[in-house]
Amino acid sequence: MKILVIQGPNLQQLGFREPSVYGVDTLEDITRRIREMAAQMGVDVEFFQSHIEGDLVRSIAEAAGRIDGILFNPAAYTHTSVALRDALQSVAIPCVEVHMTNTFARESFRHESLTAAACAGQVMGFGTESYLLGLQGLLGILRSGRG
Amino acid sequence: MKILVIQGPNLQQLGFREPSVYGVDTLEDITRRIREMAAQMGVDVEFFQSHIEGDLVRSIAEAAGRIDGILFNPAAYTHTSVALRDALQSVAIPCVEVHMTNTFARESFRHESLTAAACAGQVMGFGTESYLLGLQGLLGILRSGRG
Amino acid sequence: MKILVIQGPNLQQLGFREPSVYGVDTLEDITRRIREMAAQMGVDVEFFQSHIEGDLVRSIAEAAGRIDGILFNPAAYTHTSVALRDALQSVAIPCVEVHMTNTFARESFRHESLTAAACAGQVMGFGTESYLLGLQGLLGILRSGRG
Amino acid sequence: MKILVIQGPNLQQLGFREPSVYGVDTLEDITRRIREMAAQMGVDVEFFQSHIEGDLVRSIAEAAGRIDGILFNPAAYTHTSVALRDALQSVAIPCVEVHMTNTFARESFRHESLTAAACAGQVMGFGTESYLLGLQGLLGILRSGRG
Amino acid sequence: MKILVIQGPNLQQLGFREPSVYGVDTLEDITRRIREMAAQMGVDVEFFQSHIEGDLVRSIAEAAGRIDGILFNPAAYTHTSVALRDALQSVAIPCVEVHMTNTFARESFRHESLTAAACAGQVMGFGTESYLLGLQGLLGILRSGRG
Amino acid sequence: MKILVIQGPNLQQLGFREPSVYGVDTLEDITRRIREMAAQMGVDVEFFQSHIEGDLVRSIAEAAGRIDGILFNPAAYTHTSVALRDALQSVAIPCVEVHMTNTFARESFRHESLTAAACAGQVMGFGTESYLLGLQGLLGILRSGRG
Amino acid sequence: MKILVIQGPNLQQLGFREPSVYGVDTLEDITRRIREMAAQMGVDVEFFQSHIEGDLVRSIAEAAGRIDGILFNPAAYTHTSVALRDALQSVAIPCVEVHMTNTFARESFRHESLTAAACAGQVMGFGTESYLLGLQGLLGILRSGRG
Amino acid sequence: MKILVIQGPNLQQLGFREPSVYGVDTLEDITRRIREMAAQMGVDVEFFQSHIEGDLVRSIAEAAGRIDGILFNPAAYTHTSVALRDALQSVAIPCVEVHMTNTFARESFRHESLTAAACAGQVMGFGTESYLLGLQGLLGILRSGRG
Amino acid sequence: MKILVIQGPNLQQLGFREPSVYGVDTLEDITRRIREMAAQMGVDVEFFQSHIEGDLVRSIAEAAGRIDGILFNPAAYTHTSVALRDALQSVAIPCVEVHMTNTFARESFRHESLTAAACAGQVMGFGTESYLLGLQGLLGILRSGRG
Amino acid sequence: MKILVIQGPNLQQLGFREPSVYGVDTLEDITRRIREMAAQMGVDVEFFQSHIEGDLVRSIAEAAGRIDGILFNPAAYTHTSVALRDALQSVAIPCVEVHMTNTFARESFRHESLTAAACAGQVMGFGTESYLLGLQGLLGILRSGRG
Amino acid sequence: MKILVIQGPNLQQLGFREPSVYGVDTLEDITRRIREMAAQMGVDVEFFQSHIEGDLVRSIAEAAGRIDGILFNPAAYTHTSVALRDALQSVAIPCVEVHMTNTFARESFRHESLTAAACAGQVMGFGTESYLLGLQGLLGILRSGRG
Amino acid sequence: MKILVIQGPNLQQLGFREPSVYGVDTLEDITRRIREMAAQMGVDVEFFQSHIEGDLVRSIAEAAGRIDGILFNPAAYTHTSVALRDALQSVAIPCVEVHMTNTFARESFRHESLTAAACAGQVMGFGTESYLLGLQGLLGILRSGRG
Repeated sequence: MKILVIQGPNLQQLGFREPSVYGVDTLEDITRRIREMAAQMGVDVEFFQSHIEGDLVRSIAEAAGRIDGILFNPAAYTHTSVALRDALQSVAIPCVEVHMTNTFARESFRHESLTAAACAGQVMGFGTESYLLGLQGLLGILRSGRG
Repeated sequence: MKILVIQGPNLQQLGFREPSVYGVDTLEDITRRIREMAAQMGVDVEFFQSHIEGDLVRSIAEAAGRIDGILFNPAAYTHTSVALRDALQSVAIPCVEVHMTNTFARESFRHESLTAAACAGQVMGFGTESYLLGLQGLLGILRSGRG
Repeated sequence: MKILVIQGPNLQQLGFREPSVYGVDTLEDITRRIREMAAQMGVDVEFFQSHIEGDLVRSIAEAAGRIDGILFNPAAYTHTSVALRDALQSVAIPCVEVHMTNTFARESFRHESLTAAACAGQVMGFGTESYLLGLQGLLGILRSGRG
Repeated sequence: MKILVIQGPNLQQLGFREPSVYGVDTLEDITRRIREMAAQMGVDVEFFQSHIEGDLVRSIAEAAGRIDGILFNPAAYTHTSVALRDALQSVAIPCVEVHMTNTFARESFRHESLTAAACAGQVMGFGTESYLLGLQGLLGILRSGRG
Repeated sequence: MKILVIQGPNLQQLGFREPSVYGVDTLEDITRRIREMAAQMGVDVEFFQSHIEGDLVRSIAEAAGRIDGILFNPAAYTHTSVALRDALQSVAIPCVEVHMTNTFARESFRHESLTAAACAGQVMGFGTESYLLGLQGLLGILRSGRG
Repeated sequence: MKILVIQGPNLQQLGFREPSVYGVDTLEDITRRIREMAAQMGVDVEFFQSHIEGDLVRSIAEAAGRIDGILFNPAAYTHTSVALRDALQSVAIPCVEVHMTNTFARESFRHESLTAAACAGQVMGFGTESYLLGLQGLLGILRSGRG
Repeated sequence: MKILVIQGPNLQQLGFREPSVYGVDTLEDITRRIREMAAQMGVDVEFFQSHIEGDLVRSIAEAAGRIDGILFNPAAYTHTSVALRDALQSVAIPCVEVHMTNTFARESFRHESLTAAACAGQVMGFGTESYLLGLQGLLGILRSGRG
Repeated sequence: MKILVIQGPNLQQLGFREPSVYGVDTLEDITRRIREMAAQMGVDVEFFQSHIEGDLVRSIAEAAGRIDGILFNPAAYTHTSVALRDALQSVAIPCVEVHMTNTFARESFRHESLTAAACAGQVMGFGTESYLLGLQGLLGILRSGRG
Repeated sequence: MKILVIQGPNLQQLGFREPSVYGVDTLEDITRRIREMAAQMGVDVEFFQSHIEGDLVRSIAEAAGRIDGILFNPAAYTHTSVALRDALQSVAIPCVEVHMTNTFARESFRHESLTAAACAGQVMGFGTESYLLGLQGLLGILRSGRG
Repeated sequence: MKILVIQGPNLQQLGFREPSVYGVDTLEDITRRIREMAAQMGVDVEFFQSHIEGDLVRSIAEAAGRIDGILFNPAAYTHTSVALRDALQSVAIPCVEVHMTNTFARESFRHESLTAAACAGQVMGFGTESYLLGLQGLLGILRSGRG
Repeated sequence: MKILVIQGPNLQQLGFREPSVYGVDTLEDITRRIREMAAQMGVDVEFFQSHIEGDLVRSIAEAAGRIDGILFNPAAYTHTSVALRDALQSVAIPCVEVHMTNTFARESFRHESLTAAACAGQVMGFGTESYLLGLQGLLGILRSGRG
Repeated sequence: MKILVIQGPNLQQLGFREPSVYGVDTLEDITRRIREMAAQMGVDVEFFQSHIEGDLVRSIAEAAGRIDGILFNPAAYTHTSVALRDALQSVAIPCVEVHMTNTFARESFRHESLTAAACAGQVMGFGTESYLLGLQGLLGILRSGRG
């Protein structure tokens, strides 16, 4: 079983900037913690980060036939990208959307998610733990065949 | 450490109705699974279900000074209740909102959450697992002192 | 065949207040007239009134497996209650929504009905007769097996 | 006592098209059933159907002084016609609006009714029965002098 | 002359939580101060608090014929309750709406009041004093026969 | 110089219905008064009335090359007809829109005029005089060559 | 009979600026033509122009008891002034609103008129003639006692 | 194979008016060019033009069982007619919507199409060629059995 | 302690016009009653009335360093003036907004208050008493040092 | 004559995914069919596909002076990209927008096209044929010099 | 070359109030700095400040034929004044709008500018420097003859 | 001191296309003029242009710790990019937004700026001078330590 973790724009900044908002974990910390949990749960995991909407679209498209589940933090594109929604809808791979912060407690333009409608589930507000909970949820879906 | 699990309106129907939407687990199944995980994690857990918005408000108010964290599925009141948002804001107890379904994949009036703004995090779309992931996330928050 | 008649908030006031808007029939008059017509049509009828949204939700939930059809005047909750819509959707019992007044001829926030979408039909504007016409319509649906 | 039954655009298609939505009764079936009930209730009944908004306006205008009540299915014009609303408001004849389907369970542009505000009552969702219930309701209004 | 003071959801928390927003007076302090002023002004006063919208509706309905004026803090229901607006409109008792905070200085969903349209006046932003000013205003209305 | 006076839907009712809103002049009275003023001003005048949007469109289209100016009361179609706006835009004949009532003092859906954007001017609120003032204004435009 | 002609902001520019939009008549030309027509019709006429909303309010207030009718071009304040609407509503003097241009053929924020709702009628799009037609309409209203 | 070409309101003006917007082809030119292409492609073609929404509805209804495909320029009714949308939905005949101009490059009220949702495809912006391209597209659909 | 009472546009009309809406007290009556209460409470009071938004802005600006509290009825400017909101925000003087009528029971454009967001509290619906209650509330704020 | 065919995000998936929505033709099939038709019509054709909005912008910019016409399927960017609209507007090359599906029959956020306003025409709903019809339309525009 | 600097409402408060928002420079400081830069650049400069919208309108009107460019901080009127927009449009003098703060980083009702549409350019967010940069920009426009 | 100048999509077209809108300066002209002014002011300057939103995000992220201020023309992304807003917010570098045109004088979708909220200031409407004024403003901010 192989999981693709996709990180959207600006996430390489994690840990360095606005720690009061996003916590002190760096993208490397998050990657390491996902790797550890994946190892523990016996699944392969692969990472992709890009600031470029179209590269994120491509990473989803190329996952077809190769990847069993996607763990996706679309960051700012959550609220503006029809292209990522279409990408997720055009592959048959279950996806879980994660956010480090609780987007409902931020500006109102962050309350709507265009991408979530093409996902199985969503986890948000737990900082780094959002990824680990999302990964667990994703594996649950894959193992139950509900995806 | 003591957790209060609050179930909103119509959730006693789980498992009996619309299993294609909500799965086959009953409210009792969910309760049992939360209890098992809580035991495993060494926390006490207490349950409250009501169809009545005001009773849910009261259960939150009475949790003050007695409960360490709230796991809350406000169901339909998610989208209409200022009273529950105020109740959560007026107590200092960290809360995690959970939904069995992915509300962004349903009618647009289910996309906004009035209650989530007063919560630490939100988990949705994983059926019964939403509660278990939410509980884990809640404990993570409580143990890190971030709540 | 058993019909549950559910009366929403403020309806106990009927006949006493604002007769120019709601007519002079009291809730008892309406109950009696529904009973007479039900007897004539050979169906059992049971009544429930509450001001409390959650109690109305419960009365719908408890009707499952016991009641064949619901005649429902959600009154003010017509325009604000997702919980009642969910309650109606989660039971398989045909429901007819009735209003004594024509809500389209009143304030614009009374033009939308959240609950009607979960009903088979709607009758409004005929005062007490709205209930009797709604009951006939409901029985027609039940007898045709269309419900 | 004389009743005018007005049928709006596309209704001649009833029974032939989309029976899963509109049922299998043809416009002739509906006409016959209204006639039977009218005969039973001792009232004269007259029919008019047109696809043309302005002809429907004229039929309402010409009813003045000749017709006691109108039973009206404005169909698609329900949602777009200020002219029909004005026509109904400019004659003093009580009108009941009927729809075969429950418009609140369809597209959101079908939730608002411009014409209903100029009617005494509305019946919808009962297929052919909507007309019969509407006729009864209309006669009740006329006989009570409430119209 | 008898006045009913109705307290809406979450108000039992006053004095204990968010004192920077709501001040340090408890609900008991407010009750005592209203009682003192009422005694001074020679009117009877009676108190009711509930988190439950429908119980608030009932308290208004049961006031008919027994109570001369209502002093009402609908709290969160101010912005969402058509049922309370209808309850106030269906009894002939003058009502004054009070809020401890200035709702126009808070989130925009708190700027609209559904209930105020069914009240004679509104006082807000003075903390506990809002109740005392509201009571004075209410008595002025009752004594002038303007209610 | 030849003027076409076009009367929209429901206007044949003038003088008979709702005189408190529309005054006591009948369509014939209005026609006669326009004729008299036209005679006085030395212009030919021709009349067309229809309830049918498409017939009004046709009357405008057929005016091309034959008529110098149009005096138009689109009535209810003012607020809903793109077709009449297009008709006016596709002929090069100056048009003045008239209304007997002040539409800004009525329901908000009567505040917007789709047709006025394709007219030279508009007169409203003067009852029958609206036509006479509109005719004068139209002649002023035609004689100044500004149309 | 005495008429007050009120000219709103920027109208002193007439004739000098943007003649393609507003024509070549100056404010003096307009004043002179109104005076001539008033003389012809045997009424007194008085003029007031101000750029200041509050001065326009005052001129309306001071007209009470002294002036029989108002001819008013509120210019830009048409679309933004609740104060002028209130001023017109608080005096019992019939008012006619005039505009030189057809506001429906300009930016959409010029389509709504806040002030017209407090006027008897409106004339627009005829350049200087708008004032003369408006004056005639106003006199018609005053002489018929309809104002 | 038989195709019905339906032309909506104002289209008889083509070629005579606003050639900078609509080109110099007349409705006869368009008809002739469609006829030529139809002949070339071996299909029968029939024409209907009306300014009247209800006549367009009727032409669609009467096409049932007699016509294989519809080529439709609803013109102004594109943006306002629920009746035409319903007419198209109630017959099983594939329809292609055509516009001479690119409606997205015009006023914003021309960006939405109510009728297109009931069509298979849409072609716009090519002047007379829109019809010929639409006809080809329609035949492609009919021949592939996709309609 | 010195209080400035600011009266907005049209308020000099009080008592003379629309007494059914605003009561029979004149501005002088209100002034006298405020003076009496101020004397009783041992505070100085100063009055300013203007129809001109900018003069009201100036009166607020010039109050700085000289005035302890402001009692303000912005009348029509309540709903349209950003300048008055800015004026109140730029001085550190506590302000109470008062209205004679209950604005929530009037047109919807009177439900929003731009100025209230810059005030400490608001009193409305009590006619002249609104000022007296507002003055008491203002003094309470000033004496508690909460302003 | 040289045509550039630009394919937007996710279109490489064509034929593999959701064939019930997009048909069974692959992007290669579409490319081949366009090539064949281009050859037949004697024009050169060049292809560009990217998921990246900015690369699509660049391909349009670099077409200047080198390409005679653009055939463009902006896919998801149709509804969100001001940058592509600007790109098209900043080059003088006629463009035709094509969509395989009828976007008006899909989610409402797909009804608006930001890019179409900068195109000459649009073809949609014909699957692969949309490209061929669009190409024909584009050549018609180029050959008529209308582009 | 002569420049008019117009200061809108509340700006006399600069330097005294809310220095964290507006900085510590007083209106005199700003005036002096503009004077110095103007002297350096060899242009005359004249100042006008008013809280009164209509006086600002007048100052613009009277600038015609006397002033070469306007540097304008409309402050609160930026967001509400159609009259100032009209004033700027009716004179042919290039205008630059300046704001001390970045209005996009403040409340959303400050994001729209009604006046900017009638200006050549806008500078905001630089405190006192906004005026100096705006003056430079204005001179650039005037010297290039682009104004 | 080092400044990064970032140019958004389509800006390489400057000088070649639509000179009536954007002027005749090319991107190279602008670059050269910024370089000259920067040299004069003793600061280093570095340039980056991309059509790709994600590359612009990266250029901002990589500026951290290396660059003192950003001069940014986000072009079309101004109105649609949450990702660029987030990028600016996640680095602590003062930014000034510049536009060659006055966006308030163009289409309404260009009036809102998502990116400006994360900038210190904005300059627009001066063509190439916008960059030079923006650079001066940026240096002022950096030198005053206000950034």
